[in-house]
Amino acid sequence: MNKIKLIYEGKAKKVYETDDPTLAIFEYKDSLTAFNAKKKDSLQGKGRLTNLISATFFELLQSKNIPTHFVKLLDDNHQLVKKLKIIPLEVVVRNVSTGSLCKRLGVREGLNLDPPLVEFYLKNDELGDPLVTEDHIRAFSFASKAQVERMKQLSIKVNEILSEFLLERGIKLVDFKLEFGTDDDGNVYVADEISPDTCRFWDLSSSERLDKDRFRKDLGNVLEAYEEIWRRIRE
Amino acid sequence: MNKIKLIYEGKAKKVYETDDPTLAIFEYKDSLTAFNAKKKDSLQGKGRLTNLISATFFELLQSKNIPTHFVKLLDDNHQLVKKLKIIPLEVVVRNVSTGSLCKRLGVREGLNLDPPLVEFYLKNDELGDPLVTEDHIRAFSFASKAQVERMKQLSIKVNEILSEFLLERGIKLVDFKLEFGTDDDGNVYVADEISPDTCRFWDLSSSERLDKDRFRKDLGNVLEAYEEIWRRIRE
Repeated sequence: MNKIKLIYEGKAKKVYETDDPTLAIFEYKDSLTAFNAKKKDSLQGKGRLTNLISATFFELLQSKNIPTHFVKLLDDNHQLVKKLKIIPLEVVVRNVSTGSLCKRLGVREGLNLDPPLVEFYLKNDELGDPLVTEDHIRAFSFASKAQVERMKQLSIKVNEILSEFLLERGIKLVDFKLEFGTDDDGNVYVADEISPDTCRFWDLSSSERLDKDRFRKDLGNVLEAYEEIWRRIRE
Repeated sequence: MNKIKLIYEGKAKKVYETDDPTLAIFEYKDSLTAFNAKKKDSLQGKGRLTNLISATFFELLQSKNIPTHFVKLLDDNHQLVKKLKIIPLEVVVRNVSTGSLCKRLGVREGLNLDPPLVEFYLKNDELGDPLVTEDHIRAFSFASKAQVERMKQLSIKVNEILSEFLLERGIKLVDFKLEFGTDDDGNVYVADEISPDTCRFWDLSSSERLDKDRFRKDLGNVLEAYEEIWRRIRE
């Protein structure tokens, strides 16, 4: 399977057409961005780690019958995925209050959220990915009611699977972002990426941050944290 | 009924204790604010108009069996109301897309919203009254599930009553904000104010703005617009 043509370049990935119109190649980049790309950096080897970690999580989800876009790992920086129509919503699942949630609503950091909080954000960099309610999604047809229900159902299931898997490896899954896409038949798949760039991982005993918060908050040892996640999950 | 003690001063009103612990007096002020009080002015006679208009709307709602905090008009700038525990949420009902909604979500102005869009915002000036989902309300106990359902039900009913009443007077009710409070028995009432300070009114034929948008957007003739609303609804 070969890269034919660059069809999209995002903040952390390039997407290429292949000779199969139903498949695409993701190239994970070394660039790191935060705060809607206001903060930027590049870390050699980051793309390899997010590629390998993401592939591991997608394989785990598929083994638990979650439909995902993942087809196979190609090499250290590339994976083959289904080419989907991306639903223009990001779904955020939160098990613990932290980050933008606490800043926006003035609520305490570190509150246990049970049941987990599921939020939808409109995918729009220019608008800063605004929070939307299900009524907004319906009123402006950002997604169908059935898609919203399916995204919620899959997000909650993904949270259960990943939380359990990570807990066994001494990691608390604090929150994460998912994206979804549909194929020509309208089936909904988990798409995009699941990595320390899109999740918050806290070491279970020390609460040490093992994710992009190390970059957002200038905590240092960003790559080392990503490597630690990879070390713990690859076994 | 006399004002005993100032218990709260807001952007557009003062609230006084009375000698009856279950009642309060609202004094409507001439001050006008917008954009979370970043823009301020004072217009002599504005408080009288918002007081009279608000009283008229509350009387109308009560005649249609909507529970409200309104007891009676006292004079041009004062009204007697039930003293309630205010639920820390603002409910916004939108029949037409405009204002902050369009800016936040990048959607077109002037779209007809049917069914109307009902949104909840956390009452918190410091945080800029952030949008919240029903899941946020549940997770952080901003209100009970029963209160949320009751607020939604009352808001939709208020929208129907006011829209019909205004339509007969050549006014389109574009959107409005409601606040709610509870008495000692937990009954939910429509509270606060319903006026051109808290609603968008468009003249039905010309689409001329007859509300605080004239102040927000420097369209001039703010007081004249409020007077026009008062003239049309008092008959």
